[in-house]
Amino acid sequence: MRLSRYFLPVLKETPAEAQIASHRLMLRAGMIKQAGAGIYSWLPLGFKVLRKLENIVHEEQMRVGHIPMLMPTLQPADLWRESGRYDDYGEEMLRIKDRQGRDLLYGPTNEEMITDIFRAHVGSYKDLPLTLYHIQWKFRDEMRPRFGVMRGREFYMKDGYNFDLTQEDALHSYNRHLVSYLRTYERMGLQAIPMRADSGPIGGDDTHEFLVLAETGESEVFYDSQITDLKFGDREVNYDSHEACRAVLEEFTSRYARTDETHDEALFNEIPEERRRTARGIEVGQIFYFGTKYSEAMGATVQGPDGKSVPVHMGSHGIGVSRLVGAIIEASHDDKGIIWPEGVTPFHAGIVNLKQGDAEADAACEALYAGITALGLDPLYDDRDERAGGKFATMDLIGLPWRITVGPRGLKNGVVELTSRRTGESEEMAPEDAIRRLAEIYAPHRGAPVF
Amino acid sequence: MRLSRYFLPVLKETPAEAQIASHRLMLRAGMIKQAGAGIYSWLPLGFKVLRKLENIVHEEQMRVGHIPMLMPTLQPADLWRESGRYDDYGEEMLRIKDRQGRDLLYGPTNEEMITDIFRAHVGSYKDLPLTLYHIQWKFRDEMRPRFGVMRGREFYMKDGYNFDLTQEDALHSYNRHLVSYLRTYERMGLQAIPMRADSGPIGGDDTHEFLVLAETGESEVFYDSQITDLKFGDREVNYDSHEACRAVLEEFTSRYARTDETHDEALFNEIPEERRRTARGIEVGQIFYFGTKYSEAMGATVQGPDGKSVPVHMGSHGIGVSRLVGAIIEASHDDKGIIWPEGVTPFHAGIVNLKQGDAEADAACEALYAGITALGLDPLYDDRDERAGGKFATMDLIGLPWRITVGPRGLKNGVVELTSRRTGESEEMAPEDAIRRLAEIYAPHRGAPVF
Repeated sequence: MRLSRYFLPVLKETPAEAQIASHRLMLRAGMIKQAGAGIYSWLPLGFKVLRKLENIVHEEQMRVGHIPMLMPTLQPADLWRESGRYDDYGEEMLRIKDRQGRDLLYGPTNEEMITDIFRAHVGSYKDLPLTLYHIQWKFRDEMRPRFGVMRGREFYMKDGYNFDLTQEDALHSYNRHLVSYLRTYERMGLQAIPMRADSGPIGGDDTHEFLVLAETGESEVFYDSQITDLKFGDREVNYDSHEACRAVLEEFTSRYARTDETHDEALFNEIPEERRRTARGIEVGQIFYFGTKYSEAMGATVQGPDGKSVPVHMGSHGIGVSRLVGAIIEASHDDKGIIWPEGVTPFHAGIVNLKQGDAEADAACEALYAGITALGLDPLYDDRDERAGGKFATMDLIGLPWRITVGPRGLKNGVVELTSRRTGESEEMAPEDAIRRLAEIYAPHRGAPVF
Repeated sequence: MRLSRYFLPVLKETPAEAQIASHRLMLRAGMIKQAGAGIYSWLPLGFKVLRKLENIVHEEQMRVGHIPMLMPTLQPADLWRESGRYDDYGEEMLRIKDRQGRDLLYGPTNEEMITDIFRAHVGSYKDLPLTLYHIQWKFRDEMRPRFGVMRGREFYMKDGYNFDLTQEDALHSYNRHLVSYLRTYERMGLQAIPMRADSGPIGGDDTHEFLVLAETGESEVFYDSQITDLKFGDREVNYDSHEACRAVLEEFTSRYARTDETHDEALFNEIPEERRRTARGIEVGQIFYFGTKYSEAMGATVQGPDGKSVPVHMGSHGIGVSRLVGAIIEASHDDKGIIWPEGVTPFHAGIVNLKQGDAEADAACEALYAGITALGLDPLYDDRDERAGGKFATMDLIGLPWRITVGPRGLKNGVVELTSRRTGESEEMAPEDAIRRLAEIYAPHRGAPVF
């Protein structure tokens, strides 16, 4: 993309209403614009990141055999009356009447609707196990929406639902989700720690939240410092194997890690003092096993191998996709702006032309642009007739992890400059070498096209 | 995908509520399930097609330089009060009050919101031309939703908006949209004819609808038979060239083609009688130029080269993405089921194992599955222990354009059978040749990953 043809409305001033870094930086970098309280438009740069996160989630869900679909944003109230949650849910549910006077609601989650789909179409244990998921806009009418997309009202979320014959199978689905989430977050450049949690209005006994450590986190967290040494990495896991998935869960939950909601001071004090940590965390996902809560209330049963009808065991599993954009920024920024991890960056590299209009500099930038594009990577070329200082400030603000600076002086020596946004270190090299380096850097971050 | 692990709830019975082929077939093929009046869940097969269409739209929009973003589903009523449309829009607008008593609405279109974004961030003619678009869920509270996704209430639509300094530039944007739409529809296997139309509540003088001929179309259309001979094909167009885009518009609007709304009997009668056609058509998109209607009402101005402030010239441009799924089926089905065009098929080929459990047949199917997958194509392998007749009926119903049939008898001669869903013709060949044929067939239908 050429910046002269893009829509990147960066702000010079820090918006007064933004209290935390991600909100401030998303506004300043021209990623979002508020449309109403807790409701945002995703401007081109923001949308690009959102879509990258969505693609990673799809790819990792499909990798473990979960099946994508899409439920609507509006739901009939009657479904929620069946589970009893229509009255329970309170004012956070946005309730709507259509022109015929029918009660609708803007879905805050989809347990009822997916259970309805299941009971309409599945009747035999032979069709299990089954995990369906979707990524769809949701609405929760927060009393005090704030912190930008971190606590918006309209938000984008992946929610998945497993259907299993037995509790044991359902717990395997739970474990498999935990494994797939670990890999999902790592691809986004995040360390998200699974912590024992409360189930809240979803219900159920088994639940883990995934928390990213960040000063602005809404939860206080307590953990054993050994937990942050764990990496999922590139390991191959047999997702059908109960043992393999359970082993990963055990590894990643073997150290103490809890939020203030479930914190146990006595257990915490058993950890050697030098490993005890207190910090703040941002919740970026949660997995639940809730057994037959919805299947019994709504009659979602299958015929078992013995011919008897039994309610299915279920769980649900969420990743806050739009919130993750904010969480990544909270975890990765400095005073100059955002620092995108390679796996989610909206553009793979910025090209800064120090002397727009200089024939040699322009030609070198065009050649870099073509070379990077030919790799299947997506450069952002600042081809505007602006001062170098302004171009650098924009690149630092929007946080592309790599920048190539092209100027007449370097070109005389046959070099351009490759700069890491994270370390600030620059290295001079021939343009072909800069392209080669980008190819190497991004080789581990290539997703497959998901659809 | 292995069918034993997929969720494809095909129906044997024809649902009584479905009056037209696409609605009937989408329900029977397990593509959608109704969630409420005019509101649908997209089951896995349906979602896959929807996503393919979305990707084609993104790819063709970006090809011509339009910039993707995403506006929210809910909008504050105040924006619509500025344009005057809050009161004009009538009962089709779904109006909502949140817990604080603020008036919201579920967006049926986005002229107001995009104009608000523009006026907040753009102030100079130097930032023009600019075309922003998004693909987002919309809601129109139709009195009588029917025909499945063809006339739903919650629907998925691409809407784009151009901002230009002059009428001449804006008309170029209009023409460029027309060109890009022609290519978009052809990639979906559709012939969509641009027809002069009425502008309705969007406003403006210049507008064309794109209509797909189908018996169940809601509009009566009148055209010169020569228009259906025109193909956009694979031509290269310079989308920045006013002349090049205008020439395409002129070519594709040079023959009489109108809906009943704008039909002119006298003009129609000037066509030689043997070329006069009357038929029915489905509207799958529309483009508008409406000048300064919204920019004047909402103060979206830029400073021109002479330093004077002028309202920008705008247009809007829509493609009904969810409706297109139905339109494609209306245009391409037979009494056995759907016939997907190669460009949008949810799976590229079906593999039918005639004798599941037979070691040789199973191994041959697995090898085909691996070989097709290695091409980057997506096969659906019916690995269930079912009768051949049932497997064929399912494949015919869900409409994959190519089927490979594998059975012990053929394998003895080293062959499998490749069958075209469209013609019904089968050909025996070695498995490697079937894979090679699929690679050739799908070579012209490969999209680039769009994000």
